[in-house]
Amino acid sequence: MIIIGEKINSTLKSIRPAMENYDASAVRELAVKQADAGATYIDVNAGMFYEDEPERLEWLVRTVQTAVEKPLAIDSPNPAALEKALRANKSGKPIINSITDEKERFGHVLPLAVEFNTGIIALCMDDGGMPETYEDRVFIADRLLGKLTKAGIAPADIFIDPMVRPIGTGSHYGMVAIETIRKVKAEFPDVHIACGLSNISFGIPARKVMNQAFLVAAMTAGLDGAILDPLDKKLMTILYAAEALLGMDEYCMNYITKFREGELEI
Amino acid sequence: MIIIGEKINSTLKSIRPAMENYDASAVRELAVKQADAGATYIDVNAGMFYEDEPERLEWLVRTVQTAVEKPLAIDSPNPAALEKALRANKSGKPIINSITDEKERFGHVLPLAVEFNTGIIALCMDDGGMPETYEDRVFIADRLLGKLTKAGIAPADIFIDPMVRPIGTGSHYGMVAIETIRKVKAEFPDVHIACGLSNISFGIPARKVMNQAFLVAAMTAGLDGAILDPLDKKLMTILYAAEALLGMDEYCMNYITKFREGELEI
Repeated sequence: MIIIGEKINSTLKSIRPAMENYDASAVRELAVKQADAGATYIDVNAGMFYEDEPERLEWLVRTVQTAVEKPLAIDSPNPAALEKALRANKSGKPIINSITDEKERFGHVLPLAVEFNTGIIALCMDDGGMPETYEDRVFIADRLLGKLTKAGIAPADIFIDPMVRPIGTGSHYGMVAIETIRKVKAEFPDVHIACGLSNISFGIPARKVMNQAFLVAAMTAGLDGAILDPLDKKLMTILYAAEALLGMDEYCMNYITKFREGELEI
Repeated sequence: MIIIGEKINSTLKSIRPAMENYDASAVRELAVKQADAGATYIDVNAGMFYEDEPERLEWLVRTVQTAVEKPLAIDSPNPAALEKALRANKSGKPIINSITDEKERFGHVLPLAVEFNTGIIALCMDDGGMPETYEDRVFIADRLLGKLTKAGIAPADIFIDPMVRPIGTGSHYGMVAIETIRKVKAEFPDVHIACGLSNISFGIPARKVMNQAFLVAAMTAGLDGAILDPLDKKLMTILYAAEALLGMDEYCMNYITKFREGELEI
């Protein structure tokens, strides 16, 4: 699994005050912890700083890359912030998080992905808003993939995000996400599929268990990337179990090693 | 989900001594607890009593049905034991657990399913032993379904068991089980698919988490029955979460209710 560590995010109360105060050591610590816990990418988000997001995001990029060598997921819909952050990036090949098929956003973000040779998360969404059915999502994914690859982005650099909606607002939204993942994976086996987990459980109690179950269900359908908290040991434990179940952990060696190292929360 | 409560089983150390001593109250207590915890069927197994399995199984049937009204899963490969138990059964329509496509076993068990009008668990296995690939399993499932339905058993009374093998002995066995479930469900949507969970994790540590992840993965693929311990609250919690995710729990009402009743282990 490709794990995009979600903790350095200005929408999170736990880190936002540190960001406000330019507390570099707090940001660095969170980067190191996530890298040590298995993050493939470190997400950086400064979206709550409405007035100076570009400078804030640039600062996050510079700060994180003094702490870890992991590549970054640069998390903003704002082309100016993305560009400033991409210019500051020295940590290998980053991911842009994210593009959609909304005309304006697509037009502004695509050139950055091409110029800076990045990976990119593409949300199944266009100017018609968030699609309702899995067929609509697959249709948008198909169109996005056509346009992105035509612009020279390799399928293996694209992460399709099915746009998960809360099952508390519609009992079918779990299956919509799962079917979207399954169909996109079947049609485009070289493309990655990634999403956040917590939207699924918005508004219902005992969210963590629901998020864990969703991770396993989505991985079974073909999800191979997730934006998650790698410091959540219980979540990582079930992720390792799912990797072993789905044939991604030869002889369960990683699972057994994590167990021996006391890393599993049982 | 159809839950077959597995606790009244002579192979389990926790209940075997009580069975040896014909401790009816212990057996009844376990039946009531499993029914209260959500078991659809109560499994009864006396297989460890080599000398008098038929009488022991009959006693279990008589004892359980004084305690609960749930139908039974009568668990034996022994036709004499099955017959004695089926004659004693008064608790609605039972399931025979189980038949295979082994010539002798099939020939002896099928007439009992027909005579007593039971449901039946059919293991994907024949005289060639346990099949290696999912294609072989689907082939046997196909043949078993043909023969069982030809004998007059309705598809909705048949539970195909994919015969789960431990991923510790072959990293591909998780996917073999999942693909078998997916293909059988796609080809025969009216047929149930059920299996035990614990085989998958045999020989590796932290088995419970692996079993939980397997339950979610298998349900995502189409499993709609499981032989499990309904008194395992953590397992039931993730089962309820998976039901909600897979669109089997309208507006998560059951999940939310279980949460409010303190039944979820988070």
